[in-house]
Amino acid sequence: MSTYKVKAFGTQAPDADLKQMNIERRDVTSKDVEIEILYCGVCHSDLHTARNDWGGTVYPAVPGHEIVGRVTKVGNEVTKFKAGDLAAVGCMVDSCRTCESCKHDLEQYCLNGFTGTYNGKDKHSGTQTFGGYSEKVVVDEHFVLRVPENLDLPAVAPLLCAGITTWSPLRHWNTGESSKVAVVGLGGLGHMAIKLAKGLGAEVSLFTRTPGKTQDAKRLGADHIIISTDEAQMKPVKGKFDLIIDTVPYVHNINPYVTTLHHSGTLVLVGYLGDLTPMLNSAPMVSGRKSVAGSLIGGIAETQEMLDFCGEHHIVSDIEMIKMQDINTAYARMLKSDVKYRFVIDMTSLKN
Amino acid sequence: MSTYKVKAFGTQAPDADLKQMNIERRDVTSKDVEIEILYCGVCHSDLHTARNDWGGTVYPAVPGHEIVGRVTKVGNEVTKFKAGDLAAVGCMVDSCRTCESCKHDLEQYCLNGFTGTYNGKDKHSGTQTFGGYSEKVVVDEHFVLRVPENLDLPAVAPLLCAGITTWSPLRHWNTGESSKVAVVGLGGLGHMAIKLAKGLGAEVSLFTRTPGKTQDAKRLGADHIIISTDEAQMKPVKGKFDLIIDTVPYVHNINPYVTTLHHSGTLVLVGYLGDLTPMLNSAPMVSGRKSVAGSLIGGIAETQEMLDFCGEHHIVSDIEMIKMQDINTAYARMLKSDVKYRFVIDMTSLKN
Repeated sequence: MSTYKVKAFGTQAPDADLKQMNIERRDVTSKDVEIEILYCGVCHSDLHTARNDWGGTVYPAVPGHEIVGRVTKVGNEVTKFKAGDLAAVGCMVDSCRTCESCKHDLEQYCLNGFTGTYNGKDKHSGTQTFGGYSEKVVVDEHFVLRVPENLDLPAVAPLLCAGITTWSPLRHWNTGESSKVAVVGLGGLGHMAIKLAKGLGAEVSLFTRTPGKTQDAKRLGADHIIISTDEAQMKPVKGKFDLIIDTVPYVHNINPYVTTLHHSGTLVLVGYLGDLTPMLNSAPMVSGRKSVAGSLIGGIAETQEMLDFCGEHHIVSDIEMIKMQDINTAYARMLKSDVKYRFVIDMTSLKN
Repeated sequence: MSTYKVKAFGTQAPDADLKQMNIERRDVTSKDVEIEILYCGVCHSDLHTARNDWGGTVYPAVPGHEIVGRVTKVGNEVTKFKAGDLAAVGCMVDSCRTCESCKHDLEQYCLNGFTGTYNGKDKHSGTQTFGGYSEKVVVDEHFVLRVPENLDLPAVAPLLCAGITTWSPLRHWNTGESSKVAVVGLGGLGHMAIKLAKGLGAEVSLFTRTPGKTQDAKRLGADHIIISTDEAQMKPVKGKFDLIIDTVPYVHNINPYVTTLHHSGTLVLVGYLGDLTPMLNSAPMVSGRKSVAGSLIGGIAETQEMLDFCGEHHIVSDIEMIKMQDINTAYARMLKSDVKYRFVIDMTSLKN
């Protein structure tokens, strides 16, 4: 496999800062699309992977899976893209393509495991994949998305992870104009959940512990803000919601939210993987046919659907643009939730 | 309200045996159906209520909510029944009839609380309702079910609780011929879940810890039996099931069952109300869009649908008939799981 060097930003160890390095990209094969990366969103997963919070990080690690850019080259069998097109890449760059999940456009649930955009096992090179903190990326066209031309390009980047992660459960659980949707937590995922649920016509509420977020939540489209620590605000919403998108990324008590579900409603965890403590109590679930579920990003077809929907409804992320060289400071600020609502790296800064 | 006395079997205190007593039934009002009770199933809830295990029992308590019998009298506005008809009553005898749940035939999720067949608050008398361990019951026709004539009548009784409790989630989660359904636990609920899932055309597996139940489970219709304590049997079913009906009535670890769900599958708790301990882990739920849900009995229309289905498919419960006077012994045996699979009281024994 012939390769070439591109500049990237990555880390050599869990406790090391990210810094500039060179990585190899393959020359396009027949189905590949080469993309010059213009902007890359900064997801919490980037930070977790860089620091090996989940274990399994292979170093050097180059994060970034909210990628938008322009096609520079395509393989001779590529049909969806040509040089000059806008293009995007999200959390996956490959999957088995043959299992029952893949055949049903659910590559995120590939029974043989999808290939993550970074720290995945690259089928071409045999080593780990490198993400979007780099000049270019080369991806099979099946995993490359079309980008609506009418949207602000840097603000599109977070749609590729924060957007699809909230869009997929909204769609799977049939959110529409008669739906009452609540969002738990107002961060990168939460602010997208509000915008997308509102775009789908739902009545949208935000659960937050922070009264100071009220004004911003309304600006983003929330119809109601509920301070979850205030019993007087929680009581009136008991039994109200058809769907709750819980974006909180750390362990928290979900029982109070379950009581706010309508019968047959579902609370979907999209941010937290781990033991549910305090323990989930099944009594309100049984007595109201309520569900607690999880959901992981979304399939490629669904991601395209989401991007097209955002184009039609003029939905993008609220971002703060940074230079590649500011990434370590950005990580430190993310740990303090000091970002509204997503950092996006201007990748031209890597050329300097 | 004019009333009359009927013989019943009930208890005066949590630690007292059940014994014969007299209770009042109202004379039929315009919408009422009076039923001579021929058989009454014995549900675990009967025992829990008699002994005040859940708190809130009002004494004297007369259990029984798996009632079949023959109509003896109807009110002048009753249209569905006439004297001489077979009829059945399940877990509910009333609800508000006006809330959004009731309007959608989901009386079990009545927003104002349904009236339980026993230990409910009777809207007519203002006191507690008395269940089916009695000669007669008087119930608004909306809550009275038609019984297929072709079925063995005593074996129909358990359909009114054990049957509908498993039917409702099977239907809500769209069980059909392409479904892979697993049942956890082989008792009153579990044996009905196997029969009904099989009747709906699903491939049915039973999870049990007891190898001795294999033969009986196959006889009931299970295609596969999985000994849940045997890792070698659990591993091959990882990711297999679309729906798991978990009938276990005590605290147990559901995490091993969640791993056997197919992506987008649901585990439904129908037997256990309480904290989920060991703690439920959300990681496999997120990575496979899996749900953990609860479900409570079923609505009246759905109960009728289930009875009609059982008539068409010749499905009834496996029962052991007892006399009313044997109820205390039966409760003792139920606590040792010594019943295959439901006690049914021959109510003519109460006349003696």
